[in-house]
Parts: sequence; structure tokens; C-alpha cells
Amino acid sequence: MKLIDLYAKLKKDISYIEKELERSIDVDNDLLREASLHLLKAGGKRIRPVFVLLGAKFGTYDLARIKHVAVPLELIHMASLVHDDVIDDALTRRGQLTVRSKWDNRIAMYTGDYIFAKALSVVTQLPNPLIHQIMSKAIVEMSIGEMEQIRYFFNADQTFRDYLLRIKRKTALLIAISCQLGAIAAGAGEAASKSLYTYGYNVGMAFQVRDDILDLCGTEKEIGKPPGSDIRQGNITVPVIFALQDKSLRPGLLNEIQRIQQLDGQTDISGFIRTIRGSNGITRAEELASRYIDKAIAALEPLPDIQAKKDFTGIAHFIGNRSY
Amino acid sequence: MKLIDLYAKLKKDISYIEKELERSIDVDNDLLREASLHLLKAGGKRIRPVFVLLGAKFGTYDLARIKHVAVPLELIHMASLVHDDVIDDALTRRGQLTVRSKWDNRIAMYTGDYIFAKALSVVTQLPNPLIHQIMSKAIVEMSIGEMEQIRYFFNADQTFRDYLLRIKRKTALLIAISCQLGAIAAGAGEAASKSLYTYGYNVGMAFQVRDDILDLCGTEKEIGKPPGSDIRQGNITVPVIFALQDKSLRPGLLNEIQRIQQLDGQTDISGFIRTIRGSNGITRAEELASRYIDKAIAALEPLPDIQAKKDFTGIAHFIGNRSY
Repeated sequence: MKLIDLYAKLKKDISYIEKELERSIDVDNDLLREASLHLLKAGGKRIRPVFVLLGAKFGTYDLARIKHVAVPLELIHMASLVHDDVIDDALTRRGQLTVRSKWDNRIAMYTGDYIFAKALSVVTQLPNPLIHQIMSKAIVEMSIGEMEQIRYFFNADQTFRDYLLRIKRKTALLIAISCQLGAIAAGAGEAASKSLYTYGYNVGMAFQVRDDILDLCGTEKEIGKPPGSDIRQGNITVPVIFALQDKSLRPGLLNEIQRIQQLDGQTDISGFIRTIRGSNGITRAEELASRYIDKAIAALEPLPDIQAKKDFTGIAHFIGNRSY
Repeated sequence: MKLIDLYAKLKKDISYIEKELERSIDVDNDLLREASLHLLKAGGKRIRPVFVLLGAKFGTYDLARIKHVAVPLELIHMASLVHDDVIDDALTRRGQLTVRSKWDNRIAMYTGDYIFAKALSVVTQLPNPLIHQIMSKAIVEMSIGEMEQIRYFFNADQTFRDYLLRIKRKTALLIAISCQLGAIAAGAGEAASKSLYTYGYNVGMAFQVRDDILDLCGTEKEIGKPPGSDIRQGNITVPVIFALQDKSLRPGLLNEIQRIQQLDGQTDISGFIRTIRGSNGITRAEELASRYIDKAIAALEPLPDIQAKKDFTGIAHFIGNRSY
């Protein structure tokens, strides 16, 4: 299956969610509305709503209910991006000006606060406390993840485990609960929603690992920004953690990381990237992503054989081979 | 009644909430825990939890339930303060270093995000969707209020109505729902919780108006910071809005406001403060606060004559005469 076919098939429902997203951020304050809309229009693959829609296929598929989960999950993702841009001093994202560069940091911070709050306000319209609990707990974990990322900037002594916990909080958890809450909102049974959580968690982990590989191995055209943005920012990802375990490479890499940190990321990093590409860190990271993909597909096994199961499998395979 | 007597009477319950507050922000990330704890230990009057406790007296008073409302409401207040400090570049608050000056803006932003999320995570442990709705909507309104404040910085053309809506969002709403949610969490009837909302709204409005008067008329010792912080920051409050309506003062005030804005607040503002103090803006603002206090007390009228009603009345009178 191609991802584009899946989007084509869900087009009507995705458009509906898109309209609801726009409606959800409509507010009688020009600055806030424009900044939120700018953020929304900057796009993104709306992968979280897609996961919600597919998850809901395992219960009673009713868009008017499901939107109360699909919209907030995308809003949470958007809010976390706008706050990340404040932290990263990012000027552009996906080729568009960020809120903080088009307006300023203050506006980006309050826009993020507004969108976070709006997300919770939308989901609470669904009178299901369990859903509210799951969503608010995930936001707590995400915010801890953000702080953990800062804590580990340029820290070459972090472990593989530290990295895994961080990407779980940063990426995998929100994808996991997207699949799970789609199912719960549609009244699917507990077994199905648990399986879908496990699927989403593993797909999310694979997604982030492959994203981190791409940042080191992709071309600027493929990834929409110069390679090595992670290390410039201090973010030490799994290919680097694996490469650091190679005793012959470690001393040189430690020097490089220290040098990049001292120059605040504003330096030539091609030597660093060459070293990582030449190490076994990339292959080991690819194997790691593949293992997560295998686990994701295995988690689908107990679910009934409906089309959505095939679609979930297709997405997993797509992420496994992702090179865009 | 003196406020100190009320706190003495509620001491045991306030201590319980205080411990729960500490527990709620306990987290396995040193930075986040220290920053959150620093914020918590910086103190504050815990007026929102006190309103929750008193509101709950109109139903079945059970601290183990009520804490799920009292803790989040104080957390929301704390989170909004830490984000405000980022915006205001504040170095100290209540005589303590702010999170952004003790650590940095990034840490202050994520600490605020974490505490906001934690607040919602605590309240969702109470399986009452109505409470979740009321709380998340209030946070939405608060974040709009923050943006409105930025929008109206140094804007001398804003109306009395603009001001009222802003302080409603910024202050009154959270106090209103503190009274209301205390009652709802304790299972008090809808009539009682509505009356308490109205009481809290009016007390909150009076509180903010008096705070804004104090910023212009108090001594540095009374208010814990130099008078005129509001105008330095661009925040035009109701005594100023009233003074601007005096045709003989308006041209001079407009010049002053423009001058303060051009110098980014870093200038002598004693002339501005003298003009406002000499205008009828202060008296009119005091009358406004008194009207809100009267309305607050009137809102209590239909409630049963229990001790908490007397305590609420006492707080309203205290805020009416507040000069600390």
C-alpha cells in the first residue's frame, strides 16, 4: 500500500477534521487567531488524526464523536511544536516562518498555551473521564520529555535507555494514545484499544528512530533542513549513542561534540556527520527501527481482520522504509 | 473577621492541600522538580484553595475529593505566573528569584507547561466531566486574556469594557471557578454552585481593581515592588483609563504614556503617578471595587447561613479594604 492511497481513501474524513481544527482555534483576538491559523496552515501530515480515524474503525465509527479526540491530539502536537520553536530559536519549520519569527517569542508562548488549553477544552466535551485522564497524563509525560531533552543536550554519557525514554515521551506516546483513544471514543473493547496503544507506541518509536537517522543521512532536499540539525542543537540521537560505543571512534567523537557545544552549534559539522555515517551506528539504528516495526505489526495480530488493520500494517511498513 | 483568623481556622486543611501540592509536582527530573518546587515554595496566599475549601462547605466536605480541585486550581495559577515571568522578563516575584532568572526562559516555559498539564491530570482523577469542562474552558479564557494584555500594552484608546473583560479573564474567572468547583466537587446543588461562581467572579474583579489601584498608590513596602510596575510594562489599568477621560489631563497623560513606551519603561515615572493620584481616577476605581464587593455579598444571600457564608462575607470585606 502507498500512503498516498490511504490519504485518498480517508480524504473526506480528513477534510472534516481539518475544518474542525480550524473551527477549534477560531477566537476573538486577532493575534491569537492569526498565529494559530498560521501554525495550522503550515501543514503537517495530520498523522495523529489519521491514527485516530483508523483506531475508531474497530468500534462504532461516528465522526461527530471521534472529532473530539482527533482534533485535540493534533492541537497538542501543534502546541508542542510552537513551544519547541521558542526553545530552539527556530526561524522556519517545514519551510514556513515559525510563529516566534513571524511575531515573537511571547506570542509563540501564549499561542502554545492557548492551543494546549483548547485541546483539553475540546476533549472534555466528550463526557468520558477515562479519555480525559489518558490525554492529560500524556501531556504531562510530553512536558517531562521536553525537559529531559534540555537536560541531555550535548551529554555524551547518556545511555541508550535515556534516549528510548526520551523519544517515548517526545513522540511515541502521543501516537500510541491517538490509536488507543480513537478506539475508546468509538466504544471498541478494552483489548482492542490496548493492542492499538501497543501498535502506536512501537510505530512511534520506529518513526522517531528513523527521523533521527534521516537527520544524519538524508539530503537537505529530503529532510527540508540541513542535515545535522540535531547535533547542532545538542540533541544526541541513537546513531551517535551507538557510534560512541565504538572505542576507536569515541575519543574523536567526544572532542567533536565538545567543540560543537562550545561553538553553540555554529560550526562545520561535516566531519562529525562523516564519522557517524561511517560507523555501525546507522545500521544498528536501522535494525532498532525494524524491530519496533515488527513489534507494531505483531501487536495488531489479535485484532479482527478489517480494512483498518491492513491500513495500520501498511503505515508500519511505510514508516519502516521511510526516506522522505 | 480578620483574614488571619480564617487561615488559622483552616490551617489543618490548608496544610493538607499544601502537602498534596508538593506531592503533585514530584517528578523524576531534577530540573523540573527543583523549578516547580522553587515556584511552590515562593509562596502566595493560596487564596484559590481557600475558596475551594469554603465552597465545599456547602456540600459534603470531603478533603480527599476536594483536593482534586483545590490542587489543580493553585497549580494553574502557579503555571500562569511562571509564564508571565517569561513574558515580563521578571527577575523577582514576591521577593524571590523567578524560575526564569534562577534558571532560564526555556526552563520556565517547560516548567509552566508541566504544571499546567499536571493540573489537568490531577483534576481528571475525579470522574466528573463537568468539572473537567469548566476547568479547561477557564484555562482557554485565561490564555486569551494573556494575549489581550499584550495587545493592549500602551494602548491609551482601550475602553473601560476592554479592561473589564481582560481582568475577568486574567483574575476573576479562576477565583469564580474556585468557589464553584469546590461546591460541585462536594456535591452541592446547582443553585449553590452558581451563586458561588457569581460571588467569586465579583470578588475577583474587586481584587484585581484594588491590585491595580495599589500599584499606583501603594508604597514599595506595601506592594513588594516599586509603584508603577504596571505602566512601565505597558499595562494600562482602570485608574489610568478613568484619568484619561478627564479632558484637562488627557493630552499630558498621552504624552507621558508615549514617552514611557518609547523608553521601554526604563524612565522616571513619578510625574505620571502624581498625575493619576491627583485625578479622580483613583476614587472612581475605588467606587468600582466597592460595587463589585457589594455584588459579591449580594450573591451569597440565597445560600444557607452556615459559617462558610460568614467567612466568604469576611473575605469580601477584607478585599474591599485591602491595602497590603
